[in-house]
Amino acid sequence: MIFGLFSNMAVRSQRLAVALLFIFSGVLSFPLGQETKPTPNMLNVHLVPHTHDDVGWLKTVDQYFYGDRNDIQHAGVQYILDSVVDQLLKNPDRRFIYVETAFFYRWWKQQSSSMQQTVKKLVNEGRLEFVNGGWCMSDEATTHYSAVIDQMTMGLRFLNETFGPCGRPRVAWHIDPFGHAREHASMFAQMGYDGFFFGRLDYQDRARRRRDKEQELLWRASDSLTPPMADLFTGILPNGYNPPEGFCWDQSCDDPPIRDDPDLEDYNVDDVVRRFLAIANSQAIVYKTDHIIMTMGSDFQYENANLWYKNLDKLIHYVNALQANGSKVNVLYSTPSCYLQELHRANLTWALKMDDFFPYADDAHDFWTGYFTSRPALKRYERISNSNLQVTCNQLEVLSGPASRKGPFGEGDKKAMAVAQHHDAVSGTEKQHVANDYARRLAHGWQRCQVLVSNSLAALSGSSAERMYCDNLNISVCPLTESTLSVSVFQVVPVSAATREVRRNRGFAVNELVFQVQAPPLGFTTYSVSLLQDGPPPASTQHRTPTAIQNKNLCVHLPQFLRVTFDPDTGLLSSLSNLETKQTIKLTQNFYWLVYNASDGNNLQSDQPSGAYIFRPNSSTPFLISKTAKTESIQTSGVQEVRQWFAPWVSQVVRLYTDSKALELEWTVGPVPIDDDLGKEVITRLDTSIKTSQYFYTDSNGREMLQRKTDFRPTWNLRQSEPIAGNYYPINSRAFIKDDVDQLTVVTDRSQGGGSIHNGSLEIMLHRRLLYDDVRGVGEPLNETSNIFPKGLVVRGRLLLSLDRPPSAADAHRPLAQEVVLQPLLTFTDGDLHPNTQLEFSGLQAALPPAVHLLTLTQWDKDSVLLRLEHQFQSWESKLNSQPVTVNLQKLFSTLEVLGVSELNLSANQWKDEMTRFHWTPMTGTGHLNLFIRFYYISS
Amino acid sequence: MIFGLFSNMAVRSQRLAVALLFIFSGVLSFPLGQETKPTPNMLNVHLVPHTHDDVGWLKTVDQYFYGDRNDIQHAGVQYILDSVVDQLLKNPDRRFIYVETAFFYRWWKQQSSSMQQTVKKLVNEGRLEFVNGGWCMSDEATTHYSAVIDQMTMGLRFLNETFGPCGRPRVAWHIDPFGHAREHASMFAQMGYDGFFFGRLDYQDRARRRRDKEQELLWRASDSLTPPMADLFTGILPNGYNPPEGFCWDQSCDDPPIRDDPDLEDYNVDDVVRRFLAIANSQAIVYKTDHIIMTMGSDFQYENANLWYKNLDKLIHYVNALQANGSKVNVLYSTPSCYLQELHRANLTWALKMDDFFPYADDAHDFWTGYFTSRPALKRYERISNSNLQVTCNQLEVLSGPASRKGPFGEGDKKAMAVAQHHDAVSGTEKQHVANDYARRLAHGWQRCQVLVSNSLAALSGSSAERMYCDNLNISVCPLTESTLSVSVFQVVPVSAATREVRRNRGFAVNELVFQVQAPPLGFTTYSVSLLQDGPPPASTQHRTPTAIQNKNLCVHLPQFLRVTFDPDTGLLSSLSNLETKQTIKLTQNFYWLVYNASDGNNLQSDQPSGAYIFRPNSSTPFLISKTAKTESIQTSGVQEVRQWFAPWVSQVVRLYTDSKALELEWTVGPVPIDDDLGKEVITRLDTSIKTSQYFYTDSNGREMLQRKTDFRPTWNLRQSEPIAGNYYPINSRAFIKDDVDQLTVVTDRSQGGGSIHNGSLEIMLHRRLLYDDVRGVGEPLNETSNIFPKGLVVRGRLLLSLDRPPSAADAHRPLAQEVVLQPLLTFTDGDLHPNTQLEFSGLQAALPPAVHLLTLTQWDKDSVLLRLEHQFQSWESKLNSQPVTVNLQKLFSTLEVLGVSELNLSANQWKDEMTRFHWTPMTGTGHLNLFIRFYYISS
Repeated sequence: MIFGLFSNMAVRSQRLAVALLFIFSGVLSFPLGQETKPTPNMLNVHLVPHTHDDVGWLKTVDQYFYGDRNDIQHAGVQYILDSVVDQLLKNPDRRFIYVETAFFYRWWKQQSSSMQQTVKKLVNEGRLEFVNGGWCMSDEATTHYSAVIDQMTMGLRFLNETFGPCGRPRVAWHIDPFGHAREHASMFAQMGYDGFFFGRLDYQDRARRRRDKEQELLWRASDSLTPPMADLFTGILPNGYNPPEGFCWDQSCDDPPIRDDPDLEDYNVDDVVRRFLAIANSQAIVYKTDHIIMTMGSDFQYENANLWYKNLDKLIHYVNALQANGSKVNVLYSTPSCYLQELHRANLTWALKMDDFFPYADDAHDFWTGYFTSRPALKRYERISNSNLQVTCNQLEVLSGPASRKGPFGEGDKKAMAVAQHHDAVSGTEKQHVANDYARRLAHGWQRCQVLVSNSLAALSGSSAERMYCDNLNISVCPLTESTLSVSVFQVVPVSAATREVRRNRGFAVNELVFQVQAPPLGFTTYSVSLLQDGPPPASTQHRTPTAIQNKNLCVHLPQFLRVTFDPDTGLLSSLSNLETKQTIKLTQNFYWLVYNASDGNNLQSDQPSGAYIFRPNSSTPFLISKTAKTESIQTSGVQEVRQWFAPWVSQVVRLYTDSKALELEWTVGPVPIDDDLGKEVITRLDTSIKTSQYFYTDSNGREMLQRKTDFRPTWNLRQSEPIAGNYYPINSRAFIKDDVDQLTVVTDRSQGGGSIHNGSLEIMLHRRLLYDDVRGVGEPLNETSNIFPKGLVVRGRLLLSLDRPPSAADAHRPLAQEVVLQPLLTFTDGDLHPNTQLEFSGLQAALPPAVHLLTLTQWDKDSVLLRLEHQFQSWESKLNSQPVTVNLQKLFSTLEVLGVSELNLSANQWKDEMTRFHWTPMTGTGHLNLFIRFYYISS
Repeated sequence: MIFGLFSNMAVRSQRLAVALLFIFSGVLSFPLGQETKPTPNMLNVHLVPHTHDDVGWLKTVDQYFYGDRNDIQHAGVQYILDSVVDQLLKNPDRRFIYVETAFFYRWWKQQSSSMQQTVKKLVNEGRLEFVNGGWCMSDEATTHYSAVIDQMTMGLRFLNETFGPCGRPRVAWHIDPFGHAREHASMFAQMGYDGFFFGRLDYQDRARRRRDKEQELLWRASDSLTPPMADLFTGILPNGYNPPEGFCWDQSCDDPPIRDDPDLEDYNVDDVVRRFLAIANSQAIVYKTDHIIMTMGSDFQYENANLWYKNLDKLIHYVNALQANGSKVNVLYSTPSCYLQELHRANLTWALKMDDFFPYADDAHDFWTGYFTSRPALKRYERISNSNLQVTCNQLEVLSGPASRKGPFGEGDKKAMAVAQHHDAVSGTEKQHVANDYARRLAHGWQRCQVLVSNSLAALSGSSAERMYCDNLNISVCPLTESTLSVSVFQVVPVSAATREVRRNRGFAVNELVFQVQAPPLGFTTYSVSLLQDGPPPASTQHRTPTAIQNKNLCVHLPQFLRVTFDPDTGLLSSLSNLETKQTIKLTQNFYWLVYNASDGNNLQSDQPSGAYIFRPNSSTPFLISKTAKTESIQTSGVQEVRQWFAPWVSQVVRLYTDSKALELEWTVGPVPIDDDLGKEVITRLDTSIKTSQYFYTDSNGREMLQRKTDFRPTWNLRQSEPIAGNYYPINSRAFIKDDVDQLTVVTDRSQGGGSIHNGSLEIMLHRRLLYDDVRGVGEPLNETSNIFPKGLVVRGRLLLSLDRPPSAADAHRPLAQEVVLQPLLTFTDGDLHPNTQLEFSGLQAALPPAVHLLTLTQWDKDSVLLRLEHQFQSWESKLNSQPVTVNLQKLFSTLEVLGVSELNLSANQWKDEMTRFHWTPMTGTGHLNLFIRFYYISS
């Protein structure tokens, strides 16, 4: 029985079973020296030396590793690790934490075995401690939970296999991401972390928490999992992740070093100690215990760790020396887990939080809500890569065994996806050349994945015919123009047979072939296509009405499921009906742009422009791109389309597939014109008759849904200063608005930002092209021009609309969203297949129950596979599907014999029955009543 | 008998004699590894890892040491030495050189004894090698040889006492000074260096030398010492002192690191190796041997030595790996001495050079001749501090023994003088706050020196009356206003009794008391002064003529020595006569300014402005400040003065002391007005009837005289592009012009720049106030404003003019210049001295012969003193005094008994009889005939 949302299995296949993991055996010991031990009845200041190493941002991940392109930013991770290890060896009191396994792995590979032994010793002694430990520090607003789990697993697995239990991070550490998702906290809890620290939160939220000493709290990160399963102790760091002012001793800083030679000028020990004590005491006032933490490091610091440690050694020495004169401040080298342990020992109660930390604003007009949409093409490419590389390829490798692993397939695929989760990767907040690098890595992964798919399909089908791939079908481009070909469709959604179109172009897509296919779950099927003659397809299959004049009575409907009407005067959508449930809503949809205009008089309050991170329109009223759309409609047996042209750079296809219950809006936006010298942020807005009363709902990392309310935050009295940007939230896979009778759910094909600025309305930002940098470091306007796209980027995507009764809406949008995330992979073969070819295959003995999603099926090592099954419904959202489900693993797979199963934590680096997380007690009656009311409401 | 110019003695006093120095025992061994050995029949590329650590420039010396004020410049020497030692230990092949003992000494003091042992091991194994090794890398254009010898001795002594013979630098290393003085080369030769390397020389000179492969040469640095006494092998480094382009791997550089992991992007080993071989081969073409040197480092580099060494290790490995494929390039870690050894082994002949490397230009309009005068007040303060701190104090300490060393006197004095010799200290090319720091250190030294002087005079005179000092007598300010006081005059010139005035002010100098004093050589005498009544001194001693109208027949003369006439219309000097030799010249003198005007049309050729380093006037015609001077004359029994006012900011006193053979011009310039937004460089020009035919003469570091010729260089065909700046040379102590019958010598009281732009003319730049930075790094205009001098600096100084017959002119100017350099020290005592006080004392039994100068007399350790006697005449300049002289050391001193004498090299770190310098063979017949002609002419 799967009792929670996640259940993560190590399934032994028919080969010999071996233990996967080292066994964790209790708390790490900290052999602290005399000067660096926490002392009771004193204010203990935990100095945490650390570096924050972005896995790509202004430079590519490899440029960061090597220290290449230091003209862009001085940063070289290889040297950081060299230097830190050297310096740790010089004084056993010194501590360091390391976070990003993507970098550590690269470094480790290049070390001699004696250096590796040295590092193991440092780890075993707790002098070098891994925190977080995923491949990267993932973004929280634009990532999908499945890719996050994969990247965390990749990093933690390396640490586990390299260092054993002493290498297992105890603390999650998201010091830089720009807002924090509840689903991330839930995942961290299920990965066994004892606590979580971050640096960025809304400035009003921080002020309130400082006042109330609630910068450390207990985050209850799921409304479905039984506490404390998703409870995560959460600490907000005092200075972001920087050292206190005046105490940065990195080579990149200019703070005065400790000058303690009385023979030289400017002896400053007294001044330094005095300043430090003042800072420590003022920090202690806004935290609860007599332990405080100071993050002594920042971006790419410790390249020359001697500067830091030499001065920290002196600081500790001189501050603690005052204890002889009665000082009650004790400074020590520490780590987040050591600090956390002291907080736990304090045995206090902690404020409970049940919402999330979005949106993030660092000032009144500085909302970091632009990156929810920044680089929409990269965001889609990352999402589809997840499906292809992490899911399809991994599954096929398991299903077809060693035969799949011939040729240049491999590891690189997963690493490309892992680095893409970084908080300056899929977030879209990197420089253009770095975005190109992420995409290049993914494309390289696709190539390698395609080798594996070809191998696998050859093994499973018995045909070694060369398989080809059409990666550009989204723009109807495929190099295959032969008269006959075969199409194999590998279906990864394990629930039910899927329905999809396959299109085929000729030259530059004069015509498209659209037909419906069905593939078995976790399997493939094959279709043959022949071109009978060179002429166009029979005209009877098309009904073109290419001008706006013929809009009258334009109506698209499918007898059994949906009806869509259009306004004959404007060509816009006018209503949507669900024919099964007999519900109809008014629905108009149009496209708008928002603008930050540097010369606009509304900039008096702030000159913060929109940029890669920030969304800051001058005006609350978006500009309408066109009041009307030119339309044409096309109807075939499989699909009905109405094509809408709003402008030369904005168009849309409203599409209904015969057997689909969702309306597809395929939008195409770009190149966004900038000849008026105005950057533009393009949104589409759905205005409905639904009575929303300011509420709307967005998902968290594609998983649980959270309630949002315009101009409102659950945990403090919001002073709203940005009526649009301040009401935007991440939409990773879906958003909905509802009232008592109607729920309109919009499923997206990538992460986007959106909000409900007006009642009944839901808007989603689709594309951004900006002319200013937003002064958060990236140093480029988000213009997205390149050699390939000199006029700017054209982006195409899909929104899927589902209209349902609220109590059963999830039964529709849960599988719908999975189908969008996990799209089938098409392969093409030139000519007819050999008659003996097996044309269809399923890896499952039967489809899984609708509530259960096969999240992960991947080869773990020679003898075992990692299986993750997920209950994909929240506890309150479906009478039908929110119930516990039982799955018989023995009868699950068609080609694998299950010899044994061991349950692991979510990140597969600890046996589930050995998870011993700290227990934390929530405060009661803290007055955050609105919070509980809200959830009570949702659950009803 | 003193056979050369210098003779440097260790004189043991009456206490027990001990050996001073470790004995040098042969060539250092270089335990090179497999990859880093020179290989015959290959092009051997000597990579020399080094750092160039300015002893003050943009930051103070202590800021540089600690890495303070990194906002000004990132530089922290403590970390450099930490890091280099760490990195040397990681690979025995690695080498490093260190240069500036001022920094090394600070660092060494802070190290544990185990670290000190580690460093000694590295030094003994040749992995860490000291080069140059003085306290600093002294400036060559503005320093006086006596201070240079002292600072070199201080640094080399520390190395010798700390590391023994392995710590003795074999190579002099002046990679940064802005032009090179012949006297420096002579001193380095006499200090036992085997060779000398530098980085900066005139761009035309370098081009010629590259063409002719004469970037390595033999410098014959004295026309008086018998070769090879002052011969110094000299190498010009290929890239200044920087690494070749693209190969800088310091943290301060952006060149691509070697990316040799084929699993990561941008593997670049092939590209790096190809670029390196191209550079090595093109460098080999312009040098003579199959060994070339590359300086792998630069300003304050190696703070994180790992970056450099990690990449250098790889470079060596990958370049040498190509030898297996037939490559004939061998790269190795090396040092300048190792490289020099290979050059010596080559057994070639080398071009001979006998002039110097001034002036230095790095482009056609970029002559570094401004710093010869920059910061004239600091230059004077340094010079007078040398007299007070290095000479007076050291001598008194020896003469009065341990009694002198009570209270806070000490070491700091000498260090302040040593750092002031740095090439961005007395040169005037540092930032304002750093100039203030140098001055502050010197002032601190004065305070400590005064403690010692008081102690000594108390011991020698038997009176413990409190001694007071009037440091501001140059502006007639002294806080003593009592009616009776005693004046002690300590005389450091050891030749004959001196003549000087003493002045006493009342309040703000309404009146001055001027009287003549005499003091014995190396001793003191005492005068008592009483104020008889409160009224002014008798009017009869003054003859004031305060208006220009009364200029007629203004004539100043002293019956026995000199006559000066003034033009009655202009108030300017008109003639100078030597009454003894019965010679008269026409002599007019006036003040002018030159200007760099950014908006001047003459800037078409170059927009290089004048700045701290560069002198670049727009026009060749200086602006006359005033055609006429207002004058008044004053006459007393001791002195005759004519005071001239040229402008509110330019005045002069023309002064003749009764018994002086030199005419004193005491000029006062400043604050230089800038309200016209023009910076100004103020010169005084002496126009005479002497027929100079373009020739004139300047000293080298205050010692030997060099012939100069306008628009001419002895070793290449000059294309003159700056008619004034390109003809300026350093004047450290004197310059002269002459013809067959007349020689006019001008003795200066500090280092200044000057030239002879027109025949018969000699101009000297006195003061500079500039409004632009000259883009050579200092980043400030040389404006010299401060809180104390908000309107700019007033500078006062003296020129002493001596008119003589050329063959005997040196008999006058040699002692005259010594008297200016070594001025007597005055102390004041309030009230009458005790009757038993000894009022006069001399440390010498008799005055030394005029040719002999007591350069150094200083306590070396408890039992010995260091004595330097100097023959102060060039071999050709005086029939009377250029002859060898014999001095009887046994009978030299009145209070010291000489128990034994051991002769040392000039820097006192090696016994003279153990000096074994490399022998180098000069090329003959290389066609530099003009050079020999020139010297033949001088010698006649």
